[in-house]
Amino acid sequence: MKSDEVNERVRVAIFGGSGYGGAELLRILLFHPRAEVALATANERAGKRVGEVHRNLHGLTELRFTSALAPEELEKLDNVDCVFLALPHGQSMEIAPRLPANVKVIDLSGDFRLHSSASYEQHYGRAHTTPEWSKEFVYGLTEINREQVRGAQRISNPGCFATATLLGLAPLVAQGVIAGRVVVDAKTGSSGSGAKAAANTHHPQRAQSFYAYKPFAHQHVPEIEQTLARIGDWSSELIFMTHSLPVVRGIFASIYVEMKNAISLEDVRKMFAEFYDESFFVRLVEGSPDINWVKTTNFCDIGFAVRGHQLVVFSALDNLVKGAAGQATQNMNLMYGFEETTGLMFAGTNP
Amino acid sequence: MKSDEVNERVRVAIFGGSGYGGAELLRILLFHPRAEVALATANERAGKRVGEVHRNLHGLTELRFTSALAPEELEKLDNVDCVFLALPHGQSMEIAPRLPANVKVIDLSGDFRLHSSASYEQHYGRAHTTPEWSKEFVYGLTEINREQVRGAQRISNPGCFATATLLGLAPLVAQGVIAGRVVVDAKTGSSGSGAKAAANTHHPQRAQSFYAYKPFAHQHVPEIEQTLARIGDWSSELIFMTHSLPVVRGIFASIYVEMKNAISLEDVRKMFAEFYDESFFVRLVEGSPDINWVKTTNFCDIGFAVRGHQLVVFSALDNLVKGAAGQATQNMNLMYGFEETTGLMFAGTNP
Amino acid sequence: MKSDEVNERVRVAIFGGSGYGGAELLRILLFHPRAEVALATANERAGKRVGEVHRNLHGLTELRFTSALAPEELEKLDNVDCVFLALPHGQSMEIAPRLPANVKVIDLSGDFRLHSSASYEQHYGRAHTTPEWSKEFVYGLTEINREQVRGAQRISNPGCFATATLLGLAPLVAQGVIAGRVVVDAKTGSSGSGAKAAANTHHPQRAQSFYAYKPFAHQHVPEIEQTLARIGDWSSELIFMTHSLPVVRGIFASIYVEMKNAISLEDVRKMFAEFYDESFFVRLVEGSPDINWVKTTNFCDIGFAVRGHQLVVFSALDNLVKGAAGQATQNMNLMYGFEETTGLMFAGTNP
Amino acid sequence: MKSDEVNERVRVAIFGGSGYGGAELLRILLFHPRAEVALATANERAGKRVGEVHRNLHGLTELRFTSALAPEELEKLDNVDCVFLALPHGQSMEIAPRLPANVKVIDLSGDFRLHSSASYEQHYGRAHTTPEWSKEFVYGLTEINREQVRGAQRISNPGCFATATLLGLAPLVAQGVIAGRVVVDAKTGSSGSGAKAAANTHHPQRAQSFYAYKPFAHQHVPEIEQTLARIGDWSSELIFMTHSLPVVRGIFASIYVEMKNAISLEDVRKMFAEFYDESFFVRLVEGSPDINWVKTTNFCDIGFAVRGHQLVVFSALDNLVKGAAGQATQNMNLMYGFEETTGLMFAGTNP
Repeated sequence: MKSDEVNERVRVAIFGGSGYGGAELLRILLFHPRAEVALATANERAGKRVGEVHRNLHGLTELRFTSALAPEELEKLDNVDCVFLALPHGQSMEIAPRLPANVKVIDLSGDFRLHSSASYEQHYGRAHTTPEWSKEFVYGLTEINREQVRGAQRISNPGCFATATLLGLAPLVAQGVIAGRVVVDAKTGSSGSGAKAAANTHHPQRAQSFYAYKPFAHQHVPEIEQTLARIGDWSSELIFMTHSLPVVRGIFASIYVEMKNAISLEDVRKMFAEFYDESFFVRLVEGSPDINWVKTTNFCDIGFAVRGHQLVVFSALDNLVKGAAGQATQNMNLMYGFEETTGLMFAGTNP
Repeated sequence: MKSDEVNERVRVAIFGGSGYGGAELLRILLFHPRAEVALATANERAGKRVGEVHRNLHGLTELRFTSALAPEELEKLDNVDCVFLALPHGQSMEIAPRLPANVKVIDLSGDFRLHSSASYEQHYGRAHTTPEWSKEFVYGLTEINREQVRGAQRISNPGCFATATLLGLAPLVAQGVIAGRVVVDAKTGSSGSGAKAAANTHHPQRAQSFYAYKPFAHQHVPEIEQTLARIGDWSSELIFMTHSLPVVRGIFASIYVEMKNAISLEDVRKMFAEFYDESFFVRLVEGSPDINWVKTTNFCDIGFAVRGHQLVVFSALDNLVKGAAGQATQNMNLMYGFEETTGLMFAGTNP
Repeated sequence: MKSDEVNERVRVAIFGGSGYGGAELLRILLFHPRAEVALATANERAGKRVGEVHRNLHGLTELRFTSALAPEELEKLDNVDCVFLALPHGQSMEIAPRLPANVKVIDLSGDFRLHSSASYEQHYGRAHTTPEWSKEFVYGLTEINREQVRGAQRISNPGCFATATLLGLAPLVAQGVIAGRVVVDAKTGSSGSGAKAAANTHHPQRAQSFYAYKPFAHQHVPEIEQTLARIGDWSSELIFMTHSLPVVRGIFASIYVEMKNAISLEDVRKMFAEFYDESFFVRLVEGSPDINWVKTTNFCDIGFAVRGHQLVVFSALDNLVKGAAGQATQNMNLMYGFEETTGLMFAGTNP
Repeated sequence: MKSDEVNERVRVAIFGGSGYGGAELLRILLFHPRAEVALATANERAGKRVGEVHRNLHGLTELRFTSALAPEELEKLDNVDCVFLALPHGQSMEIAPRLPANVKVIDLSGDFRLHSSASYEQHYGRAHTTPEWSKEFVYGLTEINREQVRGAQRISNPGCFATATLLGLAPLVAQGVIAGRVVVDAKTGSSGSGAKAAANTHHPQRAQSFYAYKPFAHQHVPEIEQTLARIGDWSSELIFMTHSLPVVRGIFASIYVEMKNAISLEDVRKMFAEFYDESFFVRLVEGSPDINWVKTTNFCDIGFAVRGHQLVVFSALDNLVKGAAGQATQNMNLMYGFEETTGLMFAGTNP
């Protein structure tokens, strides 16, 4: 497709359309002025209308889900320009290598995020079957990798925790101002666990709970460390802790940093403002951000507190939008030369 | 303004921009392709950026709130085409009569909904100071009054409970199929109480509560009965009961109707489908609707259950959108000859 | 066991200790001054400490769950006085007939509530294998059947919706003051669906939802009608509708009744006050009750609104306490001659 | 009163009975086997029944609130043994010095927690009018100060955040194993803001929010540091950050500690188990605690995660019970020679 032809649309396919990542991709791409959803798969729901599975979309589309494509169908896929992979970890590594070379790929899973297949196996609990493909993928943290994303044929979309953490740390690492260990106390809403009912998202338990999980062991840790090492001279120890919030959407990361030198709030703000000068979706706020103000949007809100050498960065985003489908679309926009914000101007709501 | 000039925008003013009705009007109208928000008042927040008060809009507009207009300023208001009144009950009746005759008005309060000033005084607890003006206002329940709305200069926008109830009852009253009393068991989310903190919306109490309030006495009752009498031969007794739900957004009405004759689910559905044939924002659903699927959208989802003569209609909408700012915009669209759905294609989210 | 011996405790067994009914029985009976939990089964959790499964009880008991008893073990059960059956529907009818005749039984399932095995099969979706046993069970709606409960050897504990509805209707049916159909709009919290994760209790969906389910078809309907017919001259049509609330605990029933004669609020209150004169756990309240004030307690709070012939009764309780384990214990207290309130003086909390 | 006389009850007064601290004191003390609530004040609610203000207590007590006592009434107070002060900060310092010397006092406010009146003024925003009285008060963190509490005439009850933090840090400080700064990421439910409606607890905002507040400046910080310095050799920098959770009850503190030497999970557990050997209300758990399991109870649940030198302690409690009224009662029990757990055996609930 040639992006200079006005109103010609990118024909996109969504593999894994019934999960929450798929639900958000559909909510965004069905109304994207430069995209056309040509295909959406959902194996267990094949044949059903999209609006029957995602009842928010009832009346808004006639699209029906199709079955997952067989390997030989993948190789012959010729009616789509761009495939979004919104599948459970472990499936993309089988699918992506089989797609025609001219089809762009945006993978929302963790399959192609890590350079080290050993690290992948450790954190995702399975061997990587196509590790040589990881280098074919650009890490799609848009604000950090904008130029590479523009030229990319294949994107590995960042994890939700990784996005919140990296956007909060990147300016500091780029400037080399951090001394000592960094503590990231991260919290997520229940939609991060996916669309399938499970004990940890059973409403009677979750509605009044708060707890930590996967201490020191979350699979986004290697992705964060690998990216920080590329941004600057990262030699700190990262203490990364994930917690479960009793809300549906939202990630909030409290990032505790010791600075080499005492710094004023004003200087921190300036450092971040310059770093994110061209980044519409990073909003710097007074005081603390609040997940309430970013829910359903593609924004990552960042705020600060300072005392002497001690800096705390607060980072808030919607795990399903900036943390998944929204950032994936932001990357698609860049890949096709569209305005970065196309189809993503969701304003949130109050309340 | 002439609506046939492409891309010319309606210059709108929002009076009362800091409440939840105002928040939703801003969320919708700031991004409406045919509207331009020329003015937004918020007396206690005058001078502040809109995005500082409604932090979801941070970074999306440079607009600042202004003070409420003095009476003499109202009379000379000449740089806006259409005024949305999103003020507490009792203020519109002082303001609307002072506005220039060529300015269109859409009032979200209850001030001009009732034909009877005695009924107004009884339900709103104050005397009406400009009762003769009520006849200047068209009742803006779009799906019922579409033609009148198109030609209207002034709209009285329906109450949220009234919208959910009337959309659920209108086809039945129009067909004259109801026998005996009608019971409406209605529930609302906490945003219906407005943006100001109060005991009944104090989080520690509200988060785990469900209770009835204003039994038999809700101010939307006369508005419902007055409208039903215009739709058809309404002679039933209406038992209307309001309850508080521990959610933020959403109205759900369970409407219990005894029919003159036994009726099949299929026939009920057909009756509603024909009645709402041209109404994009009324969606008929299988089984029960769910407020989860209409939150943040302009849809009213309607479902049914039948047993012999007994019919139950379930009606669900977002109190701040179809129940307030969305329907107000829908009416503006009609008044200016735009597509009814312009600027209102919110898809909701899953989850 | 002889109840007149001071401090001798009833040895109780709980069959099905890992579900929410079992969790509440353990919370109550482990601290009941006249009971001793001799045995608690939980097949999938056999061998685990109770406090490991129900982490609220961590540190409070050394009891471990055992496997479900085999049929031959049931027949020889000799170290317990009273068995609570907190099992899924369909298991009690196999177990109860096998227990020794001198063991008292309190069944929390629906297996022995209905006199008609045809009705059971229709509503519970399975044939009843021991229908002749139903007459051996006293229906344990304590406030209505107090004397029969005292003398009972086997209790069939009412359903949660049935308890809320029957306590709200009983005085009216006993007095014969109802004319015409009765509409019951009932709502329940998510714990009513049990401890097992499922789509309808998946937190991301449930947290912001409200919807109706099982229209006209809830399995508590025959139980309600059967009981009303025993209380008085019940000939009204019952319109019973169940809805899902996004809270964990609580049932709220709005009961719409047309009276033969106009009645004052004062007279309604008097009628209920007399009927529940000796019933500590029924509290009459001003205006509407609120599930917030009964959560975790054995109270059923009842309030009223009146307009002419139209009466609305509001009934609120905790589905797991007065709607299940609390009422079961209340029945046990009566069966053994204890004070009805023994071990049940839970005060609720504010907030 | 002599505690050796069986069943003689401590006559307690609750000053400030209408707030949430007062609500919990009433819930606990009205049913405490060794206490009798002789008096409860609530100035704005004077004359009302306790059960009318705290509707969970409806039907459980005939007690009525009285007006606050005038200074001269305070001096002559002779019908109570023990006064609980559950008043806003700043009132206890006026009241406590006026009470007769033989009346025991338990103050739930911050007025007598700090040794430094300068620190009090800085953190509580007012001058201390009776600073010399602070030394008359024993800091009532029961598990740390048990012996002093036993002999105390006056108790200053710890803050909720301070309790969670101190119980998580005390064993480590006592052993002197900490190196470097300590980061405490603390989160609280909405009831911590009190019973009065305010913007930050307005349900429509709070229900879906998470944000940080009072960065580096929470008033519990000096109380924590002062206590740690008494427990051991505390020379670390404390980074203390408070966040708002969208739940009603619960505090969760994630405490990040760098240890002088690498330590195993087993050794950490052993250190804590020994330190809290006699402390029934501190429960050590596997993995992370969850506020769900401590809500409405007097427990503080503590768990751990370890990696090399890095230790994270998780501490969870109910801010109104172990963080306020429960701990106050625990202290009363010790002061009068009762079992520490008397009247406090709340089991929590699942769910």
